[in-house]
Amino acid sequence: MQALDNARDRVAGAVDDARLQARLEGLAQFGAVQPGQPRGGVARQALTEQERLARRWLAAEFAGRPGYAVGIDAAANVYVRRQGSDAGAPPVMTGSHVDTQPLGGWLDGAYGVAAGLEVFAALDAAGVHTRRAIETVMWTNEEGSRFAPGLMGSLSYVCPDRLAEFQDARDAQGVPFGQACAEARADFAAAAREAGWQWFDTPLARPLHAYIEAHIEQGPILEARGLQVGCVTAIQGVRWFRVTVPGRSAHAGTTPASARDDAQAKAIALAHALLEYGRAQDDEALRLTIGRWQCRPDSINTIADQVVFTVDTRHPDARVLDALQARLQALLPPGATMDTLQNKPTVTFDGGLTALARQACRALRLTHQDMLSGAFHDAMPLAGFCPTAMLFAPSIAGISHHPEEHTAIEDLAACTRALAWCLTDLAGQTDAPPANASFTSTR
Amino acid sequence: MQALDNARDRVAGAVDDARLQARLEGLAQFGAVQPGQPRGGVARQALTEQERLARRWLAAEFAGRPGYAVGIDAAANVYVRRQGSDAGAPPVMTGSHVDTQPLGGWLDGAYGVAAGLEVFAALDAAGVHTRRAIETVMWTNEEGSRFAPGLMGSLSYVCPDRLAEFQDARDAQGVPFGQACAEARADFAAAAREAGWQWFDTPLARPLHAYIEAHIEQGPILEARGLQVGCVTAIQGVRWFRVTVPGRSAHAGTTPASARDDAQAKAIALAHALLEYGRAQDDEALRLTIGRWQCRPDSINTIADQVVFTVDTRHPDARVLDALQARLQALLPPGATMDTLQNKPTVTFDGGLTALARQACRALRLTHQDMLSGAFHDAMPLAGFCPTAMLFAPSIAGISHHPEEHTAIEDLAACTRALAWCLTDLAGQTDAPPANASFTSTR
Repeated sequence: MQALDNARDRVAGAVDDARLQARLEGLAQFGAVQPGQPRGGVARQALTEQERLARRWLAAEFAGRPGYAVGIDAAANVYVRRQGSDAGAPPVMTGSHVDTQPLGGWLDGAYGVAAGLEVFAALDAAGVHTRRAIETVMWTNEEGSRFAPGLMGSLSYVCPDRLAEFQDARDAQGVPFGQACAEARADFAAAAREAGWQWFDTPLARPLHAYIEAHIEQGPILEARGLQVGCVTAIQGVRWFRVTVPGRSAHAGTTPASARDDAQAKAIALAHALLEYGRAQDDEALRLTIGRWQCRPDSINTIADQVVFTVDTRHPDARVLDALQARLQALLPPGATMDTLQNKPTVTFDGGLTALARQACRALRLTHQDMLSGAFHDAMPLAGFCPTAMLFAPSIAGISHHPEEHTAIEDLAACTRALAWCLTDLAGQTDAPPANASFTSTR
Repeated sequence: MQALDNARDRVAGAVDDARLQARLEGLAQFGAVQPGQPRGGVARQALTEQERLARRWLAAEFAGRPGYAVGIDAAANVYVRRQGSDAGAPPVMTGSHVDTQPLGGWLDGAYGVAAGLEVFAALDAAGVHTRRAIETVMWTNEEGSRFAPGLMGSLSYVCPDRLAEFQDARDAQGVPFGQACAEARADFAAAAREAGWQWFDTPLARPLHAYIEAHIEQGPILEARGLQVGCVTAIQGVRWFRVTVPGRSAHAGTTPASARDDAQAKAIALAHALLEYGRAQDDEALRLTIGRWQCRPDSINTIADQVVFTVDTRHPDARVLDALQARLQALLPPGATMDTLQNKPTVTFDGGLTALARQACRALRLTHQDMLSGAFHDAMPLAGFCPTAMLFAPSIAGISHHPEEHTAIEDLAACTRALAWCLTDLAGQTDAPPANASFTSTR
């Protein structure tokens, strides 16, 4: 193990803050709301011209080097592959997505792709060859803001049948997802041909040895505790409910309290009791949010005849969510109803991989803690497909999906070093040269 | 007094249920949403073609009879006048408005005008002459839904300076109120000329002996108590507040409770405490309504960064509203603000006139009670100008501003009899013939 120990540390040590930052700042120019300012906000929705250009630009950094190849699959997921010596061994994969919300920040998704490519740069700089290939993937439409639902690329990868469902999902202009994929595939292939990049076939559901995704936390925990890395053990379960409270519309001035059936007053009492219940649990892992609230007719001097509000609740333990759901049900006033809009169970990551992540942090003397992911990520579908884990870098003030989303470059680089250490470990250091058997030149 | 006693009772006794109903059903056809069905909803906003036609149709019933005249003033308020024997004595006025909400019922406002005209029919049928003229007015734009604010006609009448302010108020199509008034005046005058109606000059702020307005209650109290008439002693004070609660937007999944500044949770706690305070007053006269509620960004999985809600509160005693306002102020969480959108003090009606209304109910053996008006009416501005009172007929289930607004014809007629009794009393029975001095023929 002496050689591997040495290789992991050398690759981690070759991660370069300035190179990583330059890549991220370059990426942020694709869809920049205020060009030239990396923190002016990014509008780069899935499979738009700007996102396709960004993916080609990212691929181009390595695609022309010996031992690298690129590919794009049926869901328009783009892969940059650093070949291993054993062409038959399933690769180790990292990456994330480069699509953004309609107005997003510069790091959500982008960081995981830039970090995967930085590991390639570090491997090259350290002169380390690996037995398994390592791939950095750019998943398609993670955000779900141009086409719904999100995670289309990673869901299609692990379950190709899903792709057929997604073909007809349309954006606000009526463009079907299938058409946007076909266009992205055509222009990526044309760019690869033109540049003479090595090309490899990328069927969906190719076996993977492991998947590790680096991402910003999008929450305030690591920053508040002054930690560099979060070793993510699970993506917590989420349930979404829509609560509808009926009432009877009447004149606000002429209707005494005893004659009212005020939907707003009933909804406020219900929501208050639910939030009080949440507070009483005194459970730091419980998330409880009433994000939408719509009352009808929404008139100052008319008693509301209907209020609809939503409840987003998350916790790693399904029993906690069961209890909260039962409490909400019990609190409903007569005539009120609740619908479940979404129910995703907790996804627990691979114990061996999270242990490896901790080991990397200890070896690299990075401050770290185990934590849950409160948000969804492409790692969620992957976790059912192959051993999967995630590494989090802190988010300043927990801000995300916003132009002010930010993380200090030192923290982004520290988390990238942990990623480099894990990927080198998983891919296995070797003295053998990279195989080329699975490659086909596009020349 | 024997002659007057006799005249009041005879006029009240000559009120005819079927004639009143036919007039109301005919009126409901102007702007009927489902023509032929009086209860299918009425869309007859101020000074629209349908409302102008309705006013001409109502005037036409009496305008051609001897001893009647019509007029329209600078605010397009239309008057139908039954002449008295003393041309110099200020008239007694009744009436209401025939404009509706965008989708209103068939009785709000319409009833007060139809009832005033029914008193004319009853006076004629009973062969009673009065010393003072009696006028039935159709005030312009009471509802305030086409042009804001409401009560434009009655406000202009009592304070002609206000009319200048209103001239440039525009409807949703950009039509100025001044232009709509000018058109209504021109076509009413043309109709009068064509029909040869007697015409009289109608400056704003003409002295009035008294104003009594009949109206549906628009609340549930009379019906719930099985009473026929409400003798309205005051229009209760109203205050409108807009409360703005700020927060900080963050991801619903990644942000633990301890790191949240959730505008929705704070607004719910505030609104709950306010409604609890209202309930604890145990005061049947207190009205407290949270009619509007808008949260931003109104997304299921985003913590709200702002909630704005409105408070409509009414009570006849200003000290009760002062205490509620102070409580709301004290409950505001840090950073939250409240603005006063409206503050109208309680308007108390003339004690002599409300006593007369009670006397009428007793004389006619109508079940009745004193009550407050929770809604605004044209009688509110009039109360500062001349002795004023109102009579309420019950509203079934308190429904108003809605196609289902309804009152049994027996109740509408009962309240009209009380009105007839009061108007005959106020105008004074006489054996002298009606004067014609103030009339000018349009022939």
